[in-house]
Amino acid sequence: MRETEFLQALHFNAVRGADGSLVNMSVPIVLALDDAQRRAIQASAATSVALVDAHDRPVAVLRDIEIYKHNKEERIARTWGTAARGLPYVEEAITNAGDWLIGGDLEVIEPIKYNDGLDQYRLSPAQLREEFARRNADAVFAFQLRNPVHNGHALLMTDTRRRLLEMGYKNPVLLLHPLGGFTKADDVPLSVRMKQHEKVLEEGVLNPESTVVAIFPSPMHYAGPTEVQWHAKARINAGANFYIVGRDPAGMGHPTEKRDLYDADHGKKVLSMAPGLERLNILPFKVAAYDTKHNKMNFFDPSRKEDFLFISGTKMRSLAKNRESPPDGFMCPGGWKVLVEYYDSLAPPEGSSKLREAVAA
Amino acid sequence: MRETEFLQALHFNAVRGADGSLVNMSVPIVLALDDAQRRAIQASAATSVALVDAHDRPVAVLRDIEIYKHNKEERIARTWGTAARGLPYVEEAITNAGDWLIGGDLEVIEPIKYNDGLDQYRLSPAQLREEFARRNADAVFAFQLRNPVHNGHALLMTDTRRRLLEMGYKNPVLLLHPLGGFTKADDVPLSVRMKQHEKVLEEGVLNPESTVVAIFPSPMHYAGPTEVQWHAKARINAGANFYIVGRDPAGMGHPTEKRDLYDADHGKKVLSMAPGLERLNILPFKVAAYDTKHNKMNFFDPSRKEDFLFISGTKMRSLAKNRESPPDGFMCPGGWKVLVEYYDSLAPPEGSSKLREAVAA
Repeated sequence: MRETEFLQALHFNAVRGADGSLVNMSVPIVLALDDAQRRAIQASAATSVALVDAHDRPVAVLRDIEIYKHNKEERIARTWGTAARGLPYVEEAITNAGDWLIGGDLEVIEPIKYNDGLDQYRLSPAQLREEFARRNADAVFAFQLRNPVHNGHALLMTDTRRRLLEMGYKNPVLLLHPLGGFTKADDVPLSVRMKQHEKVLEEGVLNPESTVVAIFPSPMHYAGPTEVQWHAKARINAGANFYIVGRDPAGMGHPTEKRDLYDADHGKKVLSMAPGLERLNILPFKVAAYDTKHNKMNFFDPSRKEDFLFISGTKMRSLAKNRESPPDGFMCPGGWKVLVEYYDSLAPPEGSSKLREAVAA
Repeated sequence: MRETEFLQALHFNAVRGADGSLVNMSVPIVLALDDAQRRAIQASAATSVALVDAHDRPVAVLRDIEIYKHNKEERIARTWGTAARGLPYVEEAITNAGDWLIGGDLEVIEPIKYNDGLDQYRLSPAQLREEFARRNADAVFAFQLRNPVHNGHALLMTDTRRRLLEMGYKNPVLLLHPLGGFTKADDVPLSVRMKQHEKVLEEGVLNPESTVVAIFPSPMHYAGPTEVQWHAKARINAGANFYIVGRDPAGMGHPTEKRDLYDADHGKKVLSMAPGLERLNILPFKVAAYDTKHNKMNFFDPSRKEDFLFISGTKMRSLAKNRESPPDGFMCPGGWKVLVEYYDSLAPPEGSSKLREAVAA
């Protein structure tokens, strides 16, 4: 981003286009430089720079460059609404980044490959639009996720399709769009999640005919109401016209206080009012929980709340870690097996685990 | 403000009007309640509340009320772009305020009077528009200030009028609009500034025919690029179509670091891109300094920079405190006398001043 775009993203969550209209852009996409890099570029009097990958191979060219100050404190406060220490993406990508940002006109040489066996899932917005056209979709509803798909998610997605059919659409297609960039340490890694999602489609929990699975390459900011706009805007760009949003989207616990960082309703409210997202149709996320009476995930019914069991992500991970089974009907068996195998591969030998507990106590 | 307006102000610096257009609104205007007040209102099941002054006299009615959370940390971080301790308005009005906010439809019973001898200067936006019409103004340029007017300010304002005449306007009128609410402890108080401004007009430094002096009742937030939008928007509301903006508007030193809180250019840049301020004509503030060659305030000329003396607000206050005279032509004599008398009235007896120095050393 150039500085004008950076400032607009921070202050307005929207950038004015050449025609005067506002385009939603709530998180800055910037490249930091340290003092030495800045000096080297300025000493060379270059007006373009090559961007290289980890192996020093050029992947893009930034032309007509500008270098401006990276005011990290202000960037963090305006993006997260807090300056508390312990924000995962801040610690990963901002705190130790350089004090300068470089912007310019970006030309990507060819589509970025990760060579991790998942590149076939990395579809560009244009490729996704083509895929939806190929499937003759007349409505596309997007589901952002960074967790394994359990049957509650699946219920929500199939129910959304049902509602869209009721609204008169003939062929609503789901964009199941797991986030593929940075996530915090206790989230399940992308490769495992993708295997799990494959099982969910193989076992027919979601219908492969009406589901497109692709990777959303963004890092997770955990920036709540600010980030949910980016999550929605990027999917609109890729052809979605309905976006499913739940409680506390992109939220997390406050890093230093005993409360959630964001009000659980602010994400949906802010998204519904965001400049540049006027065309967006927001689908509220109904709460699903494990229905012990019918032994399956079901929409929560407050009139018989004693029948419902809420299984959080933390609880799910702890069950899989301890090789305990979740209740029948919580997740398809193949998908659950992927998770158990992942945690098995992580588990330290019995002795060292005990030792670690002893040290911690 | 209601919660939807509060969230839009914090996230977008603009609120969507009933017709879908964006109205700039960068600082929240909210009323905090503590737990006891909230409980009392909720216990009464009231849908309207009276707002009272310091003497318990009703001044306004808030109807169809809503009460929502006052997330102070998020409000501060998103408004100031920092969470550092020591922000003057935060300490004055937010840190110790209640944890709830009340919003609703506001009906003010009659214009608020302060009974401080300055109410004749407190003109509403409608009254200001009437005054500009009465004077047949075909352009109104606004100058926000919270300091005494020196001849550098005056030069800037008279030069702006000259430029507007050159642009073809027949009768440009200046709105000299000193801020009348909270300012930090070392700023000159409103009553003294108003006396000083009167002298500036009496002594002809500014032309009373083409100048309207009124009080802008807002508190000073010292919130830089966020606040300058409010300063400009409020003056547009009052009939101004040109706004003079300088370096680091509404800025201050960082409360805990040795640097300015905001980049000196961000205020002007952010203002020029702000949603809802598309109609605003921004007039850049040329830098004036004391020209030792011509013994008067003059626009700074970098080709002979050794001739110029920069006299900061801090320097000006310290001269007035110590009864030293500024260079001839820095400020009109009557205006300077007002300042000296003010600092005289504050000065502690010689002995106690020495004592205080001894303690501090």
